Amino acid sequence: MTIAEENLREFVENIFLSIGCSQNDAIQAADVLISADLRGIDSHGVARLSGYIRLFDHGRLNSTPNIEVVHETPSTATVDGDKGLGLVVAPFAMKLAMEKAKNVGSGWVAIRNSNHYGIAGYHAMMAIENDMIGWSMTNAAPLVVPTFSKEKLLGTNPIAVAVPAQNQPAFVADFASTAVAYGKMEILQRKGEPAPLGWVQDAEGKSTTNNNAVKEGGGLLPVGGTRESGSHKGYGLGAIVDILSGVLSGANFGPWVPPFATAGFHDVTQGVGLGTGHFVGAMRIDAFRPADEFKRDMDIWIERFRNAQAVEGEKVQIHGDAERISTTERKQNGIPLNAKVVEGLQELGERFNVLLMP
Amino acid sequence: MTIAEENLREFVENIFLSIGCSQNDAIQAADVLISADLRGIDSHGVARLSGYIRLFDHGRLNSTPNIEVVHETPSTATVDGDKGLGLVVAPFAMKLAMEKAKNVGSGWVAIRNSNHYGIAGYHAMMAIENDMIGWSMTNAAPLVVPTFSKEKLLGTNPIAVAVPAQNQPAFVADFASTAVAYGKMEILQRKGEPAPLGWVQDAEGKSTTNNNAVKEGGGLLPVGGTRESGSHKGYGLGAIVDILSGVLSGANFGPWVPPFATAGFHDVTQGVGLGTGHFVGAMRIDAFRPADEFKRDMDIWIERFRNAQAVEGEKVQIHGDAERISTTERKQNGIPLNAKVVEGLQELGERFNVLLMP
Repeated sequence: MTIAEENLREFVENIFLSIGCSQNDAIQAADVLISADLRGIDSHGVARLSGYIRLFDHGRLNSTPNIEVVHETPSTATVDGDKGLGLVVAPFAMKLAMEKAKNVGSGWVAIRNSNHYGIAGYHAMMAIENDMIGWSMTNAAPLVVPTFSKEKLLGTNPIAVAVPAQNQPAFVADFASTAVAYGKMEILQRKGEPAPLGWVQDAEGKSTTNNNAVKEGGGLLPVGGTRESGSHKGYGLGAIVDILSGVLSGANFGPWVPPFATAGFHDVTQGVGLGTGHFVGAMRIDAFRPADEFKRDMDIWIERFRNAQAVEGEKVQIHGDAERISTTERKQNGIPLNAKVVEGLQELGERFNVLLMP
Repeated sequence: MTIAEENLREFVENIFLSIGCSQNDAIQAADVLISADLRGIDSHGVARLSGYIRLFDHGRLNSTPNIEVVHETPSTATVDGDKGLGLVVAPFAMKLAMEKAKNVGSGWVAIRNSNHYGIAGYHAMMAIENDMIGWSMTNAAPLVVPTFSKEKLLGTNPIAVAVPAQNQPAFVADFASTAVAYGKMEILQRKGEPAPLGWVQDAEGKSTTNNNAVKEGGGLLPVGGTRESGSHKGYGLGAIVDILSGVLSGANFGPWVPPFATAGFHDVTQGVGLGTGHFVGAMRIDAFRPADEFKRDMDIWIERFRNAQAVEGEKVQIHGDAERISTTERKQNGIPLNAKVVEGLQELGERFNVLLMP
């Protein structure tokens, strides 16, 4: 089923309004989710809407949060999200980071007591139109095994960096610190296909092709896969994201990060901090170099890489290319949703008396 | 051959003095190199000393640079290294970043017109004793192929992040954005052993076990190895490092980054910027949260990860553990150097009339 962007957006806004979000918050939260669907990151778009509502039902989500700056300096701040939607808390923090960057060159905000914030790239990309470089990262519930660990201690902990160019579209890197996103395992499970070696390990810590390994006591591997091929680098990247998002903000960290609604619940009173943590930042380009010079050089960078000699049948891509192409296409032709996602949305629509128009 | 730390340090200082470095610069540069040897990162220690001297011989290294802040805001700066030793330029920039962090919470410095800066971790670690989180990254001459590229467009572009704890030793991640450092290929070449799949590709862009592949038109693979197992993440990380170090500072970037002495020379007038670029940063912990609370939580983080259930025969390590153990051991027993490195040092000693004491 394919739904026009505007209809889907209106539906999502109305659902968020139905749980008590303000008009502004509903618009903001819907924009993050719709942006994921437009960009082709289907796992982080409206497919998660029912998950956020389940969080609300279980009392873990505050639809009218009092988001507060609890600590700050001219270039830094810590924000308490008051159990609000990460989809709203992170943009609040990113605006604060950009305000600080405007004033003193850069701004960095650690966020605690939040929930799932959607795609990392959305928040980083807020910086682009202001001629800033944007940063965004978040911790998440443990699915990932550090190198040599049998225990899952890290989330897929993504990092995003967005950089404006002049005539070329922006560079937008946005990736998990694992070999693959958990969504890829779910696709294999549905298809009944084995996982390539290097994606997951089993309960004994051995690489496996079992697409159910994570549920059976195994874990996702950090990018790099095995120690020999550099998994300590993926583990390091995931650890950095966890420390900045969780430890620096006073949120939960490591194995204590509460699961997103779809992954079940645990006793959050057993945590080591408040909710989920994020970390965002903005650096004004002309705090380093005239923005025009920088963006001209970014064009050179992007053109050189995009035009590199490629292996047969492939092209060298710039980070953000695929998502931009998807956005153009889906804005025009609508957002394709699979039957199970549509079913979930329709259930929400019935419950809150909101109509889903195709 | 094993040489006592202090003797090796004095030798290196004297060599740097011999090419005209000031006393302070010689001490600083030697400290970065000796620190690499102590930490067990032999490829980046005194083994590179003759390379720096060759850079000097070829007119690419200024032993008496006028390191200058060419642009700044309260939380950012751009530094021109005046073709100085990266071993001296980067610590200068890191001190500036820490000064800014002291004043406004964080400090970020992009550096152009520099040369090889030794181990990334050294500069990041300068922040630890000031209760700050340190960042350090650098671009480097192209050895690495982006995903699907046949051309080498990125250096091994390392990133380091150092985080203090309370009773536990600091967390110090310091890793290249490739599957392995090029030094590992050189070891295989010496031993005549094949490379594991996922480390390098051949001139046609195919994964290969040929340990000479990089010299024969191939390239090092980004961490992740292949597209299927996440090489676009390693490529993205290397790209971020290149953009911040090279494009943001006005240094060379991508395939234009000049080679370190040991990799031969190219016509540096053909570049797109000035010399090699680095990027360093410092964030004051109490700009986010009371430092004691943060460091107590870092202890919890580190202890939880270090004590995780491990696969048989292994231990879960914290980033920085191995280097710290090596440092303790080598401070006590001396620094082991292979015959070829000692030979290179002795040649330098003869040339500059400096004695290498064991």
